[in-house]
Amino acid sequence: MGLSCINNPQKTEIDRPEIGQKIDPLPSWNNGSTKKEILAYVDAVTDKNNHNFIAIADRIATFDNDGNLWSEQPAYFQLFFAMDRVKEMAVDHPEWKTTQPFKAVLEDDMEALIKQGEQGIVKLVMATHAGMTTVEFKADVKTWIKTAKHPTTKVRYDKLVYQPMLELLQYLRENDFKTYIVSGGGVDFMRAFVTEIYGIPEEQIIGSRIKTEFDYNDGKPVIKRIAMLDFIDDKDGKPLNIQKIIGKKPVFASGNSDGDLQMMQWTASNDHKSFMLYLHHTDAEREWAYDRDSHIGRLDKGLDQAKRDGWTIIDMKNDWKVIYPHDSHR
Amino acid sequence: MGLSCINNPQKTEIDRPEIGQKIDPLPSWNNGSTKKEILAYVDAVTDKNNHNFIAIADRIATFDNDGNLWSEQPAYFQLFFAMDRVKEMAVDHPEWKTTQPFKAVLEDDMEALIKQGEQGIVKLVMATHAGMTTVEFKADVKTWIKTAKHPTTKVRYDKLVYQPMLELLQYLRENDFKTYIVSGGGVDFMRAFVTEIYGIPEEQIIGSRIKTEFDYNDGKPVIKRIAMLDFIDDKDGKPLNIQKIIGKKPVFASGNSDGDLQMMQWTASNDHKSFMLYLHHTDAEREWAYDRDSHIGRLDKGLDQAKRDGWTIIDMKNDWKVIYPHDSHR
Repeated sequence: MGLSCINNPQKTEIDRPEIGQKIDPLPSWNNGSTKKEILAYVDAVTDKNNHNFIAIADRIATFDNDGNLWSEQPAYFQLFFAMDRVKEMAVDHPEWKTTQPFKAVLEDDMEALIKQGEQGIVKLVMATHAGMTTVEFKADVKTWIKTAKHPTTKVRYDKLVYQPMLELLQYLRENDFKTYIVSGGGVDFMRAFVTEIYGIPEEQIIGSRIKTEFDYNDGKPVIKRIAMLDFIDDKDGKPLNIQKIIGKKPVFASGNSDGDLQMMQWTASNDHKSFMLYLHHTDAEREWAYDRDSHIGRLDKGLDQAKRDGWTIIDMKNDWKVIYPHDSHR
Repeated sequence: MGLSCINNPQKTEIDRPEIGQKIDPLPSWNNGSTKKEILAYVDAVTDKNNHNFIAIADRIATFDNDGNLWSEQPAYFQLFFAMDRVKEMAVDHPEWKTTQPFKAVLEDDMEALIKQGEQGIVKLVMATHAGMTTVEFKADVKTWIKTAKHPTTKVRYDKLVYQPMLELLQYLRENDFKTYIVSGGGVDFMRAFVTEIYGIPEEQIIGSRIKTEFDYNDGKPVIKRIAMLDFIDDKDGKPLNIQKIIGKKPVFASGNSDGDLQMMQWTASNDHKSFMLYLHHTDAEREWAYDRDSHIGRLDKGLDQAKRDGWTIIDMKNDWKVIYPHDSHR
């Protein structure tokens, strides 16, 4: 043994990438200004010699989910979960055949469902998301995400995540950012699949929630889901929940709608150099194109402030080489 | 170079500690059954070949704070913070000289203060914990913890943490447990100092909280603290908050009062092998001795269930070599 191990330059350089061989951390992003801005920001704040350096403990990155990490058209995927559950549960609820909004769901009559308004949606959610323990609900969602198909694309919902955003999440984590989801979606709904899909642990998921109560079933403690709203994690609810749960202001925020605007503003007010990233849905061919007039994921005031304040805007059509992971190899 | 590097056994053993040289991770704990049970548990669940092995992602450890990581006598330290703040703020509140509970605080009349009951305490907390932004409140607490002295021991509050528990927290983290505080204390109060004292990041602090609202001061977003309770993180509130915020059942829970009992039961119901640790205050000489009859940190039902179910109980007097860090070198 001895010096040959330590002194042989060939040995020690085996693992070093050659100059020019640096692996692109965002291969699904076109080499435009959006990608450059992201890379420049991360380079700056992770460089100890840069005056914008941010300590690892403060590298909090928050991501909206619907329409930001996966698609949200023609309706939020969680609504399709609720509708699928209604169909499964209908056998125990004969009265649903003649009661709205359940009748509309059972008859696949979207027009009639939309007529039931927000009240109708809340009824659907409560009937399918409450009345069971947290363990039972998680099992329901896990089964659904592995089997259900999206109505228009006919692929599984977990296939409709954005490949470029998966790369961005991974890139940030490799640079010691702690990645969180901060979504209007239900927190326990998301927790059933986010780790597998996004690589984010369940404790880094923040979302809307219904009330719960602690109880005992045959002496064994359980947490039961109650049919009452507890907190809506949208608009000003996002920074409020970030403060309650994380207790630190993010340095990186990513969203796609006006529901993310207060989270963006909160992040922009960070004393550290911060990065605000809006995803603009501009790709009617490969995904969907919508912004100011959309009922789902409306991006209006946010787009104005992003342009005015120089936040980074992803132009989906031009910035992304591929949208979904299954597109990658075409 | 070549095979000599790989095959030489001396080379590969350089970094292994010799048998018998293993450093004691809990040097302030006497070598009794309590310490042995803790070490045996951690050894088992971190050993891939053990049938009780727990994946790193599921190694969630939750610790109560008051009376469990630091002292809580003769009253919760957060109450002394409120009293100190009242004295500082009194110059702007001449009416407090004649209004309870403030009059009692300004006159150092603990008997009169106790007579004001829980209502009086809530008034004190609201007057001193609300009406400012989250940033201002944090600054208040940071100043206080670095300067204020505990009324009977006359040392700074951050000196009254338990050295054996600091070692336990560190030991668990070295074994890839994620350590959380889950306390009835105020979450934003704790966040102002926990990282420095316990090495726990702010996002792993769960506690009681008052309501907040998102607003703008001169166009800059702020979160304001409102004088209304939002959530009390005690008793069944502990498992409920753990589920809301972490979304996983702990495998290790540590507390000292009946307020921790539901968290213990929730942890005991984990499918993984779990560890429930109660601290019994038995040391009237070095700290305080109290349990079933104490108004603060009452341990009654919890003690019964711990004994019945074989949970581990720390006998402070006999299990701990030292209590506080400044005792270490005597």
